[in-house]
Amino acid sequence: MTPLLLALDPARALTVSPPAAGSAETLDVIVGLFVLLLGAKVGEEIFRRLGQPGVIGELAGGFVVGPYALGLVAPGETATVLAEIGVVILLFAVALEIKTDQLLQVGRPALVTAVLGVVFPIAAGVAFAMVAGQPPSTAAFVGLALAATSIGITSRVLTDLGVLDRRFSRIIIGAAVIDDVLALILIGIVSGAAEGDLGLATLGLVVGAIGFVVLGFAVARRARGVRREVFTWPLFADTPIVPVFLVMLALAILAALIGLAAIIGAFVAGLIVAETEAQDEIEHEIRPLAAVITPFFFAVTGAQLDLAALADPWLALSAVVLAALGIATKVVAGLIGARGAGRWSALAVGVGMAPRGEVGIVVVTLGLGLGLLTTDLFSAVLMAVVLTTVAAPLMLNLVIPRAAAETEAVAVPLPEPGSG
Amino acid sequence: MTPLLLALDPARALTVSPPAAGSAETLDVIVGLFVLLLGAKVGEEIFRRLGQPGVIGELAGGFVVGPYALGLVAPGETATVLAEIGVVILLFAVALEIKTDQLLQVGRPALVTAVLGVVFPIAAGVAFAMVAGQPPSTAAFVGLALAATSIGITSRVLTDLGVLDRRFSRIIIGAAVIDDVLALILIGIVSGAAEGDLGLATLGLVVGAIGFVVLGFAVARRARGVRREVFTWPLFADTPIVPVFLVMLALAILAALIGLAAIIGAFVAGLIVAETEAQDEIEHEIRPLAAVITPFFFAVTGAQLDLAALADPWLALSAVVLAALGIATKVVAGLIGARGAGRWSALAVGVGMAPRGEVGIVVVTLGLGLGLLTTDLFSAVLMAVVLTTVAAPLMLNLVIPRAAAETEAVAVPLPEPGSG
Repeated sequence: MTPLLLALDPARALTVSPPAAGSAETLDVIVGLFVLLLGAKVGEEIFRRLGQPGVIGELAGGFVVGPYALGLVAPGETATVLAEIGVVILLFAVALEIKTDQLLQVGRPALVTAVLGVVFPIAAGVAFAMVAGQPPSTAAFVGLALAATSIGITSRVLTDLGVLDRRFSRIIIGAAVIDDVLALILIGIVSGAAEGDLGLATLGLVVGAIGFVVLGFAVARRARGVRREVFTWPLFADTPIVPVFLVMLALAILAALIGLAAIIGAFVAGLIVAETEAQDEIEHEIRPLAAVITPFFFAVTGAQLDLAALADPWLALSAVVLAALGIATKVVAGLIGARGAGRWSALAVGVGMAPRGEVGIVVVTLGLGLGLLTTDLFSAVLMAVVLTTVAAPLMLNLVIPRAAAETEAVAVPLPEPGSG
Repeated sequence: MTPLLLALDPARALTVSPPAAGSAETLDVIVGLFVLLLGAKVGEEIFRRLGQPGVIGELAGGFVVGPYALGLVAPGETATVLAEIGVVILLFAVALEIKTDQLLQVGRPALVTAVLGVVFPIAAGVAFAMVAGQPPSTAAFVGLALAATSIGITSRVLTDLGVLDRRFSRIIIGAAVIDDVLALILIGIVSGAAEGDLGLATLGLVVGAIGFVVLGFAVARRARGVRREVFTWPLFADTPIVPVFLVMLALAILAALIGLAAIIGAFVAGLIVAETEAQDEIEHEIRPLAAVITPFFFAVTGAQLDLAALADPWLALSAVVLAALGIATKVVAGLIGARGAGRWSALAVGVGMAPRGEVGIVVVTLGLGLGLLTTDLFSAVLMAVVLTTVAAPLMLNLVIPRAAAETEAVAVPLPEPGSG
């Protein structure tokens, strides 16, 4: 009798699925994630005990455990993906606190701030690059890198300080969304011009980006009072969290495919859910996810910071000059655009628009890829982007308490009858 | 005047940190995760509407979108890591429902079930491999692959059916933990013997594994009534979730470093937290994390299933025979070990121990790496491991309602005074 197993054909047997990536490799990645999360949280703890913003502590913690300091961990694919999902969840959670009515109320100052906040930094960046003897298309890209606003850091600071319901917070958030659409359109135009192609593709991009945001806003307006059951009809949905998480991811992916930042899609998803009856429940359920996953965004950002590069005086000086230009132009844009909101509020708007974060990093990387930025320009602009991102929370911590003192909450609770 | 940027040294500028992995690459991974999660949930929905276990639907959904069917997504590093973290969270959440008292009450049946559930499958696997003309060390590895129990699938079914508080559920879970420790020790001994080394390292492994579980259990016993403040003293801890998540990851990593499955560490962490005053709050906060992350474990497992391999009649027959042996031996172990718990309960214990899951996959991969398994044996045993994993929930769905009907919950709520 032929033993069963010897009758097997080894060649065919090879078609059986291989096991997943080695568990040792998986373990290494999980250890790296643990170190990043622990670093971020220890950093936050130290900074908060010192009275500084927790988010700077998370950035610092990521830097300390990262490749440019202790070298305990070098964020790879998984950490980068969790960082992106983390900031997506953060912006979703921020939008969950916002009603579209409140955004419409700040439409004018947000629009003016956004437009000026794109025009001024581009003008400053172009002027700087022209002085440095760069061609116009390169100068345009330096300007663009300074124009993009990353709202992740500011959102976190506004949440930590409990001022998301203030008028200046709405202006910052509204302006940042408009700013992202404007920056995307300009990036498309400059890239198209650099490649000698300014045709239908660019037009499609412009229409797609504006269409996505406007359509999302319109859906949010019509979502008011939508029943919880819209999210819980599937049997798998004991609570609305999984269907809502899928919607959030889908809109983030759609936004990214159009060319917008993924966080814009997440923000739109949050605006929509905020109007429905599931808002309260989702607000509670998103919190543990945000608490565990968003620190990866800040830790990974911190881990990309190479302070040693600042030892080169020329590089440091260029970066500092560009960062100062970037911050100053956004502050002026805020002071003009939000001037009706009060002096400190307008300043808070300007400072809140200052961080360039991952949007700026994407722009400089694109510029390098298109051959529009030299390595030295790339380094200087990248350092400037990082500096604006790190400096903003420190400035916000000084400005926001004063801004909060001069304004009232947008949604003032009705005084209880018979009270005080 | 020298323009500022031209003075930069490009060589030094290169030391500036490069941007994170391209955002296009990150987006691809996020799209893959979205497709896996959506596939798992659509699969669950269809199976539950057909009255079948939701977890089989998640496996099927992962299979359908995976590389061996539609090919929409091939789980890479991030999906594999999320799958592992997902099953870690699942076992943590399961342990969170269990008091050590309740495990001690089932100590005897759990121990007997675990020991027999390791001895019988090894005997059957060895007999099978010897008949197939394999050398003793190879036969031992085939037996070992059938001995390991993966409690992930069963835990999920017990949770879905709401019977985690039943006596048979405690026996299954207690036996699975003991089983994992026994399997680890045997794997260490067989691997050591294969490499001609049975010395201090093996002894260290045995002591480490037993020590970890015993120590964890002892800590859980002493954690009774520990204050919530133990987890919320850091300023970053608005709620206990982040510190507890870090403890869970740390114990999972520690268990994996010792050589135990990571889920054993997560289980011990859950046992400890279950005794503290933070239990109730953590139970609520872990739910959204489990809802979003654990489906990746089942979807990734399903995506590794290559049904085409079953088209080879000999491979299919070997796999089916091995799977039948694997299930029958565990069922007999359960019937003997848990005979005091009632007929259907004892059957439920046996069936509940049947899935070999990722522990079995790790063992066969190790055997292949040590040169103890040929490619054809590897394929057959791997298919058998997968079959036990897929068959178990279907059988549990038939057995558990009967077992639940013949037993009462371990913790019977006191009747309210004056009630019926």
